Amino acid sequence: MHFTSEQRLDNGVLEREFTLGPDGDDQIPGTLWTPTSTPAPLILMAHNNGLPKAEPRLVARARLTAAHGYAVASIDAPECGDRPRSAATDQARAELRRAMQAGEPVDDIFESFVGPMVEKAAPEWLTTLDALLAVPEIDGPVGYSGWTALGIRLAAVEPRIAAAGFFAGGYVPLAQREQARQVTVPLLFLLQWDDEGNPRQRALDLFDAFGSKEKTLHANLGGHLGTPSFEREDGDRFYDRHLR
Amino acid sequence: MHFTSEQRLDNGVLEREFTLGPDGDDQIPGTLWTPTSTPAPLILMAHNNGLPKAEPRLVARARLTAAHGYAVASIDAPECGDRPRSAATDQARAELRRAMQAGEPVDDIFESFVGPMVEKAAPEWLTTLDALLAVPEIDGPVGYSGWTALGIRLAAVEPRIAAAGFFAGGYVPLAQREQARQVTVPLLFLLQWDDEGNPRQRALDLFDAFGSKEKTLHANLGGHLGTPSFEREDGDRFYDRHLR
Repeated sequence: MHFTSEQRLDNGVLEREFTLGPDGDDQIPGTLWTPTSTPAPLILMAHNNGLPKAEPRLVARARLTAAHGYAVASIDAPECGDRPRSAATDQARAELRRAMQAGEPVDDIFESFVGPMVEKAAPEWLTTLDALLAVPEIDGPVGYSGWTALGIRLAAVEPRIAAAGFFAGGYVPLAQREQARQVTVPLLFLLQWDDEGNPRQRALDLFDAFGSKEKTLHANLGGHLGTPSFEREDGDRFYDRHLR
Repeated sequence: MHFTSEQRLDNGVLEREFTLGPDGDDQIPGTLWTPTSTPAPLILMAHNNGLPKAEPRLVARARLTAAHGYAVASIDAPECGDRPRSAATDQARAELRRAMQAGEPVDDIFESFVGPMVEKAAPEWLTTLDALLAVPEIDGPVGYSGWTALGIRLAAVEPRIAAAGFFAGGYVPLAQREQARQVTVPLLFLLQWDDEGNPRQRALDLFDAFGSKEKTLHANLGGHLGTPSFEREDGDRFYDRHLR
């Protein structure tokens, strides 16, 4: 793990870019945010469906959660963020946009590129987790936050993940819908009641399917981007209950 | 309004019993909890379906919310708590228990006594609200907490109610299901995912029906009595956002 740049933010959080592995298409680019008081528990934060780790909403969330006292890390996994994408994935994304705008069914298109994307992302997130836990500023249990499908994939197999917060979850690849019952850690499932890209009933069915004995659903009125800011603070308190 | 007894609790909260109106069946018995720092905003707290204001879970909730900084009040309205009940209501309650245990439909029984109970309770809660707002320790906007049907009835007609937290809401009389769209204040709707007495889909449909632009659903795994303690604190923060 090589830190390639760092900046100290006004709120005291240290924001560092890193890479894992040798130069090339397989190199994993990541960002680590650490609070002023360390060592701190770690939260792996992933944006839904491979949006970039540099996406401003993810960065804003990561900075605030780090200021609250967590180490937060995100990576661009294969086919995610700025990593090279196959022509097939680019074509599937274009086709998804077209189909959604036309109001056509999108399951097959979605499955065709998000399913493989999750399978490729999971091992890189686990490799990154190993590397992060060797960083002196990080200690204690691990939380997960964000992309539902990837989070299911990770929480189902990785016992170091002690609590998970998932967002949206209307479209989740079939493999992860089936894995949901294997997720048994405490769960905060956040959805937008009128999410234009995530059918409500499917998200509710997914919440129902999780194997966790302790699971909480938060839903707010509005579309995909309308989550109220207090939900991030609720998320912090959820992790405080389980990672402290 | 006559205070008939008072005690100072260990957490500093002043707990006072009061009565409104002359002695007799129409006299309203109530409890008022006030914090150490006053004047404070008021929260009207009602237990579902007329359970007594002295019920230990309501009392515990009221004391903690008062310690957080709110004046909290509850009353036993007609046919509620220790107030005299008609033979018809007693019979309907017995019939409801029998039907629920037998797994029979309960809508008609429920409607027959909860519908009229809400209609009788609402004017007394509004009379009590007038009296409470004249108490020097109370000032500012008013919140409502608890019994969904009564809360809909009050919030739909009473502009002084600025925010409402409702619980359960699977069985709500028809009149209040129809009034739900008239509720437009910020709303926190709390339900138990496996509430044995409140069908989940009906509660979700009710959440959908509220007219509020700002509404949040919280759901937790477990039965009617299994609400996690952190939900009370989430409730305090909801009121803090809207009553402060």
